[in-house]
Amino acid sequence: MSLETTFFFQDHSHDFIQFLNQKKYSKIFLLADSHTNGFCLPLLKQLIPEFCYSCLIVIPAGEAHKNIDVCQLIWNALLLQKADKHSVLVNVGGGMVSDIGAFAASTYKRGIDFVNIPTTLLAMVDASFGGKNGIDFDDTKNAIGSFTNPSAVYFNTHFLKTLPNSVLRSGIAEILKHSLLDSIGALDETLDLDINDFFQARSYRKSIAFKSAIVQIDPHDEGIRQSLNLGHSIGHALESFMLYAPKPLLHGEAVLLGLIYELMISHLIFQLPIEIVQKVIAFKDRIFADLKCPFDYIDIEKFIGNDKKNRGEIRMSLLEAPGTGRWQVPVSVQQLKTAITETKQFLAK
Amino acid sequence: MSLETTFFFQDHSHDFIQFLNQKKYSKIFLLADSHTNGFCLPLLKQLIPEFCYSCLIVIPAGEAHKNIDVCQLIWNALLLQKADKHSVLVNVGGGMVSDIGAFAASTYKRGIDFVNIPTTLLAMVDASFGGKNGIDFDDTKNAIGSFTNPSAVYFNTHFLKTLPNSVLRSGIAEILKHSLLDSIGALDETLDLDINDFFQARSYRKSIAFKSAIVQIDPHDEGIRQSLNLGHSIGHALESFMLYAPKPLLHGEAVLLGLIYELMISHLIFQLPIEIVQKVIAFKDRIFADLKCPFDYIDIEKFIGNDKKNRGEIRMSLLEAPGTGRWQVPVSVQQLKTAITETKQFLAK
Repeated sequence: MSLETTFFFQDHSHDFIQFLNQKKYSKIFLLADSHTNGFCLPLLKQLIPEFCYSCLIVIPAGEAHKNIDVCQLIWNALLLQKADKHSVLVNVGGGMVSDIGAFAASTYKRGIDFVNIPTTLLAMVDASFGGKNGIDFDDTKNAIGSFTNPSAVYFNTHFLKTLPNSVLRSGIAEILKHSLLDSIGALDETLDLDINDFFQARSYRKSIAFKSAIVQIDPHDEGIRQSLNLGHSIGHALESFMLYAPKPLLHGEAVLLGLIYELMISHLIFQLPIEIVQKVIAFKDRIFADLKCPFDYIDIEKFIGNDKKNRGEIRMSLLEAPGTGRWQVPVSVQQLKTAITETKQFLAK
Repeated sequence: MSLETTFFFQDHSHDFIQFLNQKKYSKIFLLADSHTNGFCLPLLKQLIPEFCYSCLIVIPAGEAHKNIDVCQLIWNALLLQKADKHSVLVNVGGGMVSDIGAFAASTYKRGIDFVNIPTTLLAMVDASFGGKNGIDFDDTKNAIGSFTNPSAVYFNTHFLKTLPNSVLRSGIAEILKHSLLDSIGALDETLDLDINDFFQARSYRKSIAFKSAIVQIDPHDEGIRQSLNLGHSIGHALESFMLYAPKPLLHGEAVLLGLIYELMISHLIFQLPIEIVQKVIAFKDRIFADLKCPFDYIDIEKFIGNDKKNRGEIRMSLLEAPGTGRWQVPVSVQQLKTAITETKQFLAK
């Protein structure tokens, strides 16, 4: 089991190969889902020829399969192919694959090494590192899991070219969130980006460095790491509210809207400059031009208290100023209502 | 999740109660098997009245139930009764209950606190602390698990009075093993004990202190902790060999015999004084008077290489001298055969 994670970027693929060789793993197992098996593994094997000789485990794609049954398939495959304590599991895919793969590896023979190779922008800037893993259980998201760091993460934007634009969006919202929490400089850089820039490594390297620093300070999510929930309280509520709509919101769309509303709450509570809210709305209009979601407090009321991080009352992660996150901030229903009304007016402009 | 474990002994039950109160757990869950639910919980609730108001989870007794299905029952019960990250799971039972309970707790919502209350002598000196937990999967012992320390362990010998003598035996063999690895003084103390002494806390406190020190040096079983496997290579092989015999060996009986044979191998390889072997045989004759198990190398041949710690070749944890364990020692088939023949002669005297 690794305490620290080594990051490798596409321009240093050779270092990643050297890392794998130095580890002298007894066996390398590749975990892919039915999508990444087809779209990403051929490219990956070209980039990292070492993986041509790996044992392959393929699981069904989609969040619905992030469960204990699929986890048992992975454990079973590892046992059948005689993975020992010196084997490594390489998770190739989005957050679903790295979440379940990391959990399976962290519990197989009390923990074997694992490596994440994220193939979506969201997984690159979020799920692929930081130690959180898990599976859903009995309708509860990530009910079962552990905190265990990957030995390494290998980033390569070539995988992004196989993705539909909608999937790219989830990552963009997360990068925006990181830059809001990072600094005014990082924020301005992100707001200047064009959709095509997100296929370039430079657009997300700062985002990875930022989250990585936060996670090192608070690995077990007991303090400052909770600031990374910015945008997610209202984002999750909106996602739940729209779940059965004719056109449900994508996760990244919900988080982007959640960010805008929570920045308005931050304006009301901490006097965050209103220009920040306006700039983020302008960014949304440019990058997510078609994204609309008119709603009222009453629509999300029953979803907003449900957030497991809130212990029943409404507490949110907000932004005091660019670069200064706050967490566990009590928010009254009245403040929430006012913020929603005011944000709607801004969005309508 | 706790990094350190606090030990509480029966003469300081009040401190344990204070510990529970100070932790301000949101909810206390008791995990028991069908035996300890009947035999131990009534006494436990008298000793620790705080447990009268706990939620109870009862699982079927026996190693055959240390599996993923029963683990799911525990996760399910925790979710149904709304255990949150500030809840605690208290595992009351032998090694099976603490192994599966610790695994369930260490993975529930990425890890909640758990406390072990061992009710067998073996669990007191071995399974209840040290961080190893796990469940069996696809016929592989402890195939799935983690290294996670309990927040606390509460020891009380009153539980031992509910046990048949055969169960007590497993603990005695483990205490003897610890004292061999500890020092000549600890060994002589243990060899002087009478069967009734094992109901007294003083007989096992030194054993707990010794294992605890080893585990702190090597929590992840990568070095000196492997010395604790002394007696277990041949012990496990004998247990497997006798599994379908009319009267199978109990685990503690197999380990005691394993110790005797491996001390003889230690005599051959490291010149461990033969008097140590003789003293341990005398102890066996006094405490486990009826224990006989005549066998030849050929009987255990197919089981001896199977030990997962051995990577195919025969490597054992042996004793260079009382207080000086060795691990990963290569042992030739010829040395094994000679040791078995010589030990048989000593045992027959």
